[in-house]
Amino acid sequence: MSHQPPDYDCPFCGIQNGVFNEYNQPSDIVGDNDLAYARISPTWWPDNPGAALVIPKAHHENLYELPDDVGHAVWDLTRAVARAMRASYTCEGISTRQHNEPAGYQDVWHLHVHVFPRHVGDGLYVRHRESRHVTPAERAPYAARLRAEFGG
Amino acid sequence: MSHQPPDYDCPFCGIQNGVFNEYNQPSDIVGDNDLAYARISPTWWPDNPGAALVIPKAHHENLYELPDDVGHAVWDLTRAVARAMRASYTCEGISTRQHNEPAGYQDVWHLHVHVFPRHVGDGLYVRHRESRHVTPAERAPYAARLRAEFGG
Repeated sequence: MSHQPPDYDCPFCGIQNGVFNEYNQPSDIVGDNDLAYARISPTWWPDNPGAALVIPKAHHENLYELPDDVGHAVWDLTRAVARAMRASYTCEGISTRQHNEPAGYQDVWHLHVHVFPRHVGDGLYVRHRESRHVTPAERAPYAARLRAEFGG
Repeated sequence: MSHQPPDYDCPFCGIQNGVFNEYNQPSDIVGDNDLAYARISPTWWPDNPGAALVIPKAHHENLYELPDDVGHAVWDLTRAVARAMRASYTCEGISTRQHNEPAGYQDVWHLHVHVFPRHVGDGLYVRHRESRHVTPAERAPYAARLRAEFGG
């Protein structure tokens, strides 16, 4: 159930190793624990600015075979990001999601959990086709808020 | 950040204690571990039949204050349900999601993770308003498949 091409150049490994581009900047990273890191997402939906991703540091494609300790670190950091957004954004709720395989909407072959700041009437799901890439400059102020919550 | 009314009659506690109705049947439960259980959801979206929920056994409203060990048990069981669906349903992928507070689309005040069997073109997000309650008879064959995977 792997869909990753043999020569896959993984952006979520790259950002940890100094490979940067408009979608992956050092300024996107907001916090970490032993086995996972959190970053502002380069893709946002219309009324959910500042969405983040929680990502294992090691390369694992999807949920099915993820080691227990890695999964627990991802869960813990997801909870921490949810709390930090709720404390430092203007959002009124949080939702999370995780996608496996193309039929499940996965499009980066390194497991990641989406953490969304939610607002009443944001239409996150019905507006699914309205996502856009956001610039590093748009991402930076949200990253700064989460980093401050993490004490970084 | 609690939204649970003071006299809340929790359905996800009730089903564990023998309080059954058309939405909560003993036949919905498919497996468990020390701190969490999994069940077929009483609500499905059009092209994702057999969707399931993973639920802590103890009553916790949302993600923000969930104890570490409970969260890890929820994560582990979510992964197990994902594998079991992938092995016993006809789906081609899995996605998961979790909602906190009304703005985040939470509507049962006991934390739960949705686990969806996914199919190419199922439109899970854009068809968000097309969910429906399903009968115990519709749920039973999916529960039987997952229980068989769990050896139950």
